[in-house]
Amino acid sequence: MNVFVAELFGTFLLVLLGCGVVANVVLKGSKAENSGWIVISLGWGFGVGIAVYAAGWVSGAHLNPAVTLGFWAIGGISAQMAMVYIIAQCIGAFLGAIVLWLAYKQHFDETADPGLVLAAFSTGAAIRNTKWNIISEAISTAVLMIGILAIFTANNGIGAGFGPYAVAILVCTIGLCLGGNTGYAVNPARDLMPRIAHALLPIKNKGNSDWGYALVPVVGPIIGAVLGALLWNNLLLPVFTQQIS
Amino acid sequence: MNVFVAELFGTFLLVLLGCGVVANVVLKGSKAENSGWIVISLGWGFGVGIAVYAAGWVSGAHLNPAVTLGFWAIGGISAQMAMVYIIAQCIGAFLGAIVLWLAYKQHFDETADPGLVLAAFSTGAAIRNTKWNIISEAISTAVLMIGILAIFTANNGIGAGFGPYAVAILVCTIGLCLGGNTGYAVNPARDLMPRIAHALLPIKNKGNSDWGYALVPVVGPIIGAVLGALLWNNLLLPVFTQQIS
Amino acid sequence: MNVFVAELFGTFLLVLLGCGVVANVVLKGSKAENSGWIVISLGWGFGVGIAVYAAGWVSGAHLNPAVTLGFWAIGGISAQMAMVYIIAQCIGAFLGAIVLWLAYKQHFDETADPGLVLAAFSTGAAIRNTKWNIISEAISTAVLMIGILAIFTANNGIGAGFGPYAVAILVCTIGLCLGGNTGYAVNPARDLMPRIAHALLPIKNKGNSDWGYALVPVVGPIIGAVLGALLWNNLLLPVFTQQIS
Amino acid sequence: MNVFVAELFGTFLLVLLGCGVVANVVLKGSKAENSGWIVISLGWGFGVGIAVYAAGWVSGAHLNPAVTLGFWAIGGISAQMAMVYIIAQCIGAFLGAIVLWLAYKQHFDETADPGLVLAAFSTGAAIRNTKWNIISEAISTAVLMIGILAIFTANNGIGAGFGPYAVAILVCTIGLCLGGNTGYAVNPARDLMPRIAHALLPIKNKGNSDWGYALVPVVGPIIGAVLGALLWNNLLLPVFTQQIS
Repeated sequence: MNVFVAELFGTFLLVLLGCGVVANVVLKGSKAENSGWIVISLGWGFGVGIAVYAAGWVSGAHLNPAVTLGFWAIGGISAQMAMVYIIAQCIGAFLGAIVLWLAYKQHFDETADPGLVLAAFSTGAAIRNTKWNIISEAISTAVLMIGILAIFTANNGIGAGFGPYAVAILVCTIGLCLGGNTGYAVNPARDLMPRIAHALLPIKNKGNSDWGYALVPVVGPIIGAVLGALLWNNLLLPVFTQQIS
Repeated sequence: MNVFVAELFGTFLLVLLGCGVVANVVLKGSKAENSGWIVISLGWGFGVGIAVYAAGWVSGAHLNPAVTLGFWAIGGISAQMAMVYIIAQCIGAFLGAIVLWLAYKQHFDETADPGLVLAAFSTGAAIRNTKWNIISEAISTAVLMIGILAIFTANNGIGAGFGPYAVAILVCTIGLCLGGNTGYAVNPARDLMPRIAHALLPIKNKGNSDWGYALVPVVGPIIGAVLGALLWNNLLLPVFTQQIS
Repeated sequence: MNVFVAELFGTFLLVLLGCGVVANVVLKGSKAENSGWIVISLGWGFGVGIAVYAAGWVSGAHLNPAVTLGFWAIGGISAQMAMVYIIAQCIGAFLGAIVLWLAYKQHFDETADPGLVLAAFSTGAAIRNTKWNIISEAISTAVLMIGILAIFTANNGIGAGFGPYAVAILVCTIGLCLGGNTGYAVNPARDLMPRIAHALLPIKNKGNSDWGYALVPVVGPIIGAVLGALLWNNLLLPVFTQQIS
Repeated sequence: MNVFVAELFGTFLLVLLGCGVVANVVLKGSKAENSGWIVISLGWGFGVGIAVYAAGWVSGAHLNPAVTLGFWAIGGISAQMAMVYIIAQCIGAFLGAIVLWLAYKQHFDETADPGLVLAAFSTGAAIRNTKWNIISEAISTAVLMIGILAIFTANNGIGAGFGPYAVAILVCTIGLCLGGNTGYAVNPARDLMPRIAHALLPIKNKGNSDWGYALVPVVGPIIGAVLGALLWNNLLLPVFTQQIS
């Protein structure tokens, strides 16, 4: 139960803050309108870091079904518990999208372009192409998964208090370095649940929820996280630790 | 007495630095004029962090009446001591606004737009609407309060030396992710006392102090901080610690 | 073997993330297109930090032939082991450039300017002049080498968990402060191997790989790292520690 | 002798990196040309942090005659040793300015505006007024001095490895929040010695070294540092520690 609530609340914060920074930059009339990629990248990264501070000491702060499946693939979590994590993450992400809408309600109302309204909820590719978009998301999420495993499972002396900040920097990095192609969903719950919220909420000036793209930021991150976790756990870690341990 | 001076001096620094970054970006002729939201967000966040380094080891560095009331709502501080904190914060914020004015005196004199002059002292909503502005401030401040509680009261191993920096990142996050609607006062003293200073100081080219908005950044943050503190303390924390402790 | 794989994988990450941020900023249609030097500098710095988290606890994370030769010059690594490090770094950098291309495949295809395509792989001087470009690269790399030695060998109490972040900040600093002349390769593998990948990969719209410049970001960094290491180890460190130890 | 070399080398790095970021942003043809205040602020702050990592464990890393005089005013250093520190700082700053010129030699040659050439060496006020410029520099330097004292002498648990990074954030803060009026010299050596180097070096297209302003960034910082140190040590610290110790 405690991990369920922690994953739910952590993912709630992640979506509220992460989608929040996109809203802040793209919605009409915001004081941060058009403030650029550096705001997006640092906002998303730091927002994830705050969410990890809130939830990490309880549940380990996956806050991401792809990360949970990555841990599952290498025996780090049971299938049953993974389901608990993922359900909590999805509920939290959905609630986060609702509060996001309330926080920027007037700016959503003022924004005439339905593409910008959707952008504050879910990602879209800069150049649409299912195969390449999935590859991009998979690469970015593999880096995320390997980064998390390196930060937390490697013998590198990161203390519990600094770890969430290291994750924040990791997410900043993915945004800065690998984010401009598909908008780095790297998290199925972060993308799909706000998309559902977008479809359900009575948002003024909204257009369609772009369901044709909805599977890309689900499939790509899962592939990437699982492959990344397997690469780290089955290839890299055994070699890395062969002489040290 | 020591906590009184610590809260006074810490809030003095918070306002000098935080309002300072706004002055730096909006006032005419500043070398940082129009340098954008990333400067505002990091400047405010880092400025709060420095203030917490200065005062936190003495008073815990609330530096914010809403945060003090949040702690009071969950029994973290007595009503009498909360009054001491809040009075100190208000005096410090007032003095901070005066020194801010001295630091940028010539640029205040050069700035013809009274709206920009006021912006360096107090916040204003991007889209004026009492109800929604209060909601936005309440959401942002609830995240601030929960973030502070998560960083300092959670069992997450943050050392005393790193904590103020984590608070800096938290405030950066709120600015980046949730700040462009109302300018994230999230602190009644930070907004009201510089507004009073604005009204009293012999500032060239100043207009009215926009008293019609003055209650929003007082009421919204208090609501948010109290609700955030209650949510964390009475709902989340009991669940989070049920199996761990 | 473990250090070989660690250097290979770490340099792979370094190039994927570091060249990734350049691709993100310069390639056509990227959401981060033209987002400026702050994105480049923080992305490169944080990306190196993540690579050091992944590999540092195994190999010390040189991830850079110039740094390895700097350590060799002061007796910090044997000639034979230095060769192992450098070969691993070159293979990793080459693979990183390939995955970079896949991650941004569509944006490479859309970018008509062959100069921008090459910029995502390898550096070029803002003002071409072999002598001065080598001097600039040597100065930047000497600061990098001395910074690494100061962070890791000085008696300054940096913990193992914080060290890679300090390196990230060091690389951010070099980009922000010393990077705009030659684009701060400061790493022969980071520049030469992506250049070879650029020559070999079937990239649409690519031009020549600018082999006339290729030696500058190899020679300059090696000179700088070796001189920096000798300066620190033979002049500064003996003086610094004469009364303390 | 060891503190002399440490202060010399640390201040050398501080000026090379700090003036370097200004050169990077203002000189013609730099890849970072016109990249704005966020680059200036983070570059200066992080650059100081790197210098503190290099020298701090030996000499405490004042790297600034105003800071040294601030410590002297409160009995933290003898008059004789303060002279040693200040002479070392001035020599280091002078050498840093020379290497800065070499690192950006071609860009100095290409820059036709003598004001921009001077800006890469020394500060100038946005609005020239001796009294107010001194006040601005004094306020900024008082915050710097108090921040340093709070970070290092307060009982706040900052470890030796994190301290230099906290100083980096402090200097970032001063730039972001209080820097756009006079360009935050906050350090007599950082301003006067590069000004002398500017006067002596055979720089193409250079104009006069603006000696009429040269005393402001010497006098203002000294006043601010001494007043800040006295305020902290004689007023704040005795109150802060009256019940704790």
